[in-house]
Amino acid sequence: MQIVIIGSGNVAYHLAKAFTQNQIPLVQIFGRNENDLKKIAEELHIDYSTDILKEADLYIICVSDRSVEEVSALILKKDCLVVHTSGSLPKEILAGEYRKASFYPLQTFSKSKELEYEKIPFFIEAENENDKNILFELASKISQKVMESTHEKRKYIHLTAVFACNFVNHLFTRAKEISDSQDIPFDYFLPLIDETVQKIHEMDPKLAQTGPAVRNDVRILDLHKQLLKDESLEIYETINRSIKKMYEL
Amino acid sequence: MQIVIIGSGNVAYHLAKAFTQNQIPLVQIFGRNENDLKKIAEELHIDYSTDILKEADLYIICVSDRSVEEVSALILKKDCLVVHTSGSLPKEILAGEYRKASFYPLQTFSKSKELEYEKIPFFIEAENENDKNILFELASKISQKVMESTHEKRKYIHLTAVFACNFVNHLFTRAKEISDSQDIPFDYFLPLIDETVQKIHEMDPKLAQTGPAVRNDVRILDLHKQLLKDESLEIYETINRSIKKMYEL
Repeated sequence: MQIVIIGSGNVAYHLAKAFTQNQIPLVQIFGRNENDLKKIAEELHIDYSTDILKEADLYIICVSDRSVEEVSALILKKDCLVVHTSGSLPKEILAGEYRKASFYPLQTFSKSKELEYEKIPFFIEAENENDKNILFELASKISQKVMESTHEKRKYIHLTAVFACNFVNHLFTRAKEISDSQDIPFDYFLPLIDETVQKIHEMDPKLAQTGPAVRNDVRILDLHKQLLKDESLEIYETINRSIKKMYEL
Repeated sequence: MQIVIIGSGNVAYHLAKAFTQNQIPLVQIFGRNENDLKKIAEELHIDYSTDILKEADLYIICVSDRSVEEVSALILKKDCLVVHTSGSLPKEILAGEYRKASFYPLQTFSKSKELEYEKIPFFIEAENENDKNILFELASKISQKVMESTHEKRKYIHLTAVFACNFVNHLFTRAKEISDSQDIPFDYFLPLIDETVQKIHEMDPKLAQTGPAVRNDVRILDLHKQLLKDESLEIYETINRSIKKMYEL
């Protein structure tokens, strides 16, 4: 199967790398940014182009959500499969007469970091069984976790990731704001944070909950509220309310 | 120096273990729960008692916040140092005529887990330089991170930990609720969560923020709100508001 990757960002780079590392050849990496393309192409020994898109059986579009439609219209071939890698777009956004599918890797990619590709889950949606099988087989060569997913389901996958990652990172930011205000090195909290995350590898987070809210420790809750204001106070009250509701306190 | 640990819970066990592993002898472990005491004492080869408190230079009280005062009143000796291990109580809660101090390990202890003690930060507050030095020296034998801390500062330390750990765990719980609702294994999100946490070991969480709110991606934000209700919707709105405020969006 002839595969082309379109894009030169983090997703394009990491997918291209995962494929080449697993002896899945790429006929081309195609995109607008010649500098970035060239770097990837040289590192991974792939042909690249900014203007002539090669013939292929499968095109994997790895560009930002807002560019997917436009980029997909560049593929004029009909007898091929085109996939995007977005968590939030339907496969129907792809603008061409080819077969359409979604090939969504659930991971934050950053160029500088080495990733364990086999742990990255892939969510797949296709128009027919055959295309689904092609994509399952492909994803299974680089990852141990491959699952079918409708567009509707992908919305919830993305939403779960927002809570578990984006929002968690914001709590770290607000936490650091508090420790910075008292000249306490935020580093000191890293072992505790690591432990918190390690725990949910082994048990249901609902059962792992600790802290003043789940103990309904009114003395501490009142004391903390006096130390907070503005957005941090709002977060404190909202999350405590949510904990109380969940544990019926 | 003669040291006695009072308590038989997780903090008592882990402190006793860290001390004995670092060749710091304990003259006794004292508490109410004979079963738990006996287990710790046998594992670590320490004397234990539920009724006769031995003479010592330093008593380390490792009991729940609400029992610290009562337990501290059992120590009738005057020429000694008594410390509690609570993050939220002042050292003055200790009810005796001895010298008082606070010796606060910042960690969630659970009995079953092996801990890397040298990474656990200790926060110390004492009445005088001499006691402070004694406790610094002691903590430094088991941990690489020892810092002075007033009662006021400990409140903020605890509050930081609530945001960075307790609240983070609750977000994991709400995230799992979302993925469970769609039969998506929560395990699939663990690599992404690990990556999120790994990142803040290397960079300021404020700079690591990703997601629809910091991109001000109104399409996704509106879509997500339609998928949520009740407490999860409240959390979604509160945290997005906080992100927008922080990044001046």
